[in-house]
Amino acid sequence: MPTVPDAIHPTSGVTRPLQALDWDAGQQLVIAIDTLVHGVHFPAATAPGDVGFKALAVNLSDLAAMGAAPRAAQACLTHPRDGEAEGRRWLAAFEEGLGTLAQRFGIPRVPAQTARGPLSVTVEVLGSVPRGMALCRDGAAPGDLILVTGTLGDAGLALSVDSAAMDAASSAWLQMRLARPEPRIEAGIALRGLASAAIDVSDGLVADLGHILAASGTGAHVNVDDLPLSLVLQQHLPGEHAWELALSSGDDYELCFTLPPRRLARLEDRLRDLACGFTVIGTITASGDLQCRRADGSHFRAAPGYRHFL
Amino acid sequence: MPTVPDAIHPTSGVTRPLQALDWDAGQQLVIAIDTLVHGVHFPAATAPGDVGFKALAVNLSDLAAMGAAPRAAQACLTHPRDGEAEGRRWLAAFEEGLGTLAQRFGIPRVPAQTARGPLSVTVEVLGSVPRGMALCRDGAAPGDLILVTGTLGDAGLALSVDSAAMDAASSAWLQMRLARPEPRIEAGIALRGLASAAIDVSDGLVADLGHILAASGTGAHVNVDDLPLSLVLQQHLPGEHAWELALSSGDDYELCFTLPPRRLARLEDRLRDLACGFTVIGTITASGDLQCRRADGSHFRAAPGYRHFL
Repeated sequence: MPTVPDAIHPTSGVTRPLQALDWDAGQQLVIAIDTLVHGVHFPAATAPGDVGFKALAVNLSDLAAMGAAPRAAQACLTHPRDGEAEGRRWLAAFEEGLGTLAQRFGIPRVPAQTARGPLSVTVEVLGSVPRGMALCRDGAAPGDLILVTGTLGDAGLALSVDSAAMDAASSAWLQMRLARPEPRIEAGIALRGLASAAIDVSDGLVADLGHILAASGTGAHVNVDDLPLSLVLQQHLPGEHAWELALSSGDDYELCFTLPPRRLARLEDRLRDLACGFTVIGTITASGDLQCRRADGSHFRAAPGYRHFL
Repeated sequence: MPTVPDAIHPTSGVTRPLQALDWDAGQQLVIAIDTLVHGVHFPAATAPGDVGFKALAVNLSDLAAMGAAPRAAQACLTHPRDGEAEGRRWLAAFEEGLGTLAQRFGIPRVPAQTARGPLSVTVEVLGSVPRGMALCRDGAAPGDLILVTGTLGDAGLALSVDSAAMDAASSAWLQMRLARPEPRIEAGIALRGLASAAIDVSDGLVADLGHILAASGTGAHVNVDDLPLSLVLQQHLPGEHAWELALSSGDDYELCFTLPPRRLARLEDRLRDLACGFTVIGTITASGDLQCRRADGSHFRAAPGYRHFL
C-alpha cells in the first residue's frame, strides 16, 4: 500500500491569474517577459526592492523600444525560503520595489506568485500600441540618423568603480542608474511614426545597435566624440575609457533608434519636454559593419561584448 | 583605469517580445504565468520535452478554469549550460514538447528566451474570454452541485507506484497523465454561463475545492463513493486508498466546478462530445467545512495537504 506520495506542486501560491482585462480593438498587444537569476543577473547582495524595481524596469524597457504603453504586469518568484519568515520579508521588499515603478505608470497587477526554489524572479508585462504603430528593428535605411536617449555607460561605471573613492552624491546617483533604471516609456511612445527602427540598450550599444543593423541589412558609423556621457562618468574616466563603457557596457536601458533626417525637427518637438533628452551619435550606412570613429576620422575599436558579472 | 567591467545581462537571448497581436474588443484578456523549478516542481530525471509540455499545460489549465481560450504563449528558461551544446539540446527538446501542445491549440509563440542559471522554466499564456463571461471562484451557492472532469488521483498514483510492478500499457498511461496532462480548455469554454464557480485541480481536490469554498463563503459535502477513478487507479489501489489519492494528490489538472442543479441538462448537452467526461461528486452547503462522506453517511477523513516531492 503506498503511503501518501509527495506531490509535485505547480506553485505554492493561490493567486489567481490576472483576469478580465478590457481591451480597445484599435490597440495591438505586446508582451515582454524576462527572468533574472540571483548571482547571474543581479549580484547576491542586491536589495530585494531593487530587484523588484529592475525586474519590472527591464521589461518596460522592452515595451518602450516598441513604442508600447504598459497595461499590466505579473511576477513569478522562486525563493529558497518561500513561505518562511525570511522568504516573506524578501517578497515584501521585492513587491515594494516593483510596486513603486508599477504605480508610476498606473499598471494594475496582482501579487507575485511564489514557489520554493533557487532565488530568481520572472516578470511579464503587457503593453498596447495603436495598430500598425509598433516600432521595429528592421526599418533602418542608409542615411538615417542614429540617436540615443539619456547617457550611456553609467551602469557599467557603477559596476566597475570603487564607490568608496567617489563623493556620496555621485556614488548614490550611479547606484540608482544601475539598480533602478528609468524605462523610457514616454520617449518610446513619442517615437511612434517617426523612428525607422528602435531597440533598448540592455547589452551595450554596440551589441544592441548591431541587432538593428542585422535586421535592417545595413551598416553604421558612430562618432564616439558624440556619445552622451554623464558628468559623473566624465569625471571618473578620461575620454577613451569613457567611450569604451558607453559603447560596450550594458544595463543602461536607454533607447537607441534611427530616424530619417527630415524628421529631426518633429522629433525635437515631441521629445522637448522629456527629461532624458536625446543625442545624434551617427549615421546608418548602406553596407559594412558598425564603424566607430573619432572626430579626426580615425577608427576607434570598441571593446568586445560583456560577460555575466560572475 | 578600470578594465572592461563584467556586466549584468538581462537575458542572453536576442528574441523580440511577442508583438503586435490584434485583439477583438468584445473579448477580455486573461494572463496566467507559472514557474517550474528543477527538483522542486519536476523531478531531476524528467525529460525536457515533458517539462516543456507540462509548463504550458499547467498555464493552459489556469485559462481553462476561467473559461478562456488560449491566444499566445511565451517561455523563459534558465539552464546551467545555456549557450553550450548541452543547454541547446535541452532547449530544443523543451521547445518540441511545448510546441506540440501549443500547436494543438493553434497558439502562436516566439522561441523561449534563455539565460544561464539553475534549471527552471517560466511560461506565460494569454487567453481571451467574451466580456463578462470569465468563470470565477466566488459564485458557488448552497444547493449547487459539485462536479469534476475526467478522473482524479492518477498523477498521484504515478508518483507513488513502482511502475516495474505494472503492465506496460498501464504504466505508460499513468506516466502520460503525470507528464503530459491535458488542459481542459474545451470543457472550460463549455462552462461559460453555466458554472457558478470553477478551479483547476493542481494541488489536490480538497485544497482546490477549498479555494472555491473560501471565496464563496460556503461549505460542501463530497461523496467519496462518487469520486471518478480511472480503471488503472482502481486496479492498483483498493477503495479507500484510491479515494485518498483522488481527494488529496495534486497534478491532475482536471476542472472542479459548481453548477445550479437546474442547469445540469444544459451542461450534459454541451459536454456530451468531450472525451474527458464529468461527474457529480457532491453539493455546496451553506456553512461548515468540506465534509467527505461514504455512501453509508459515515465521515471519511481526507489526507492532509501534500508537500513538494523533495
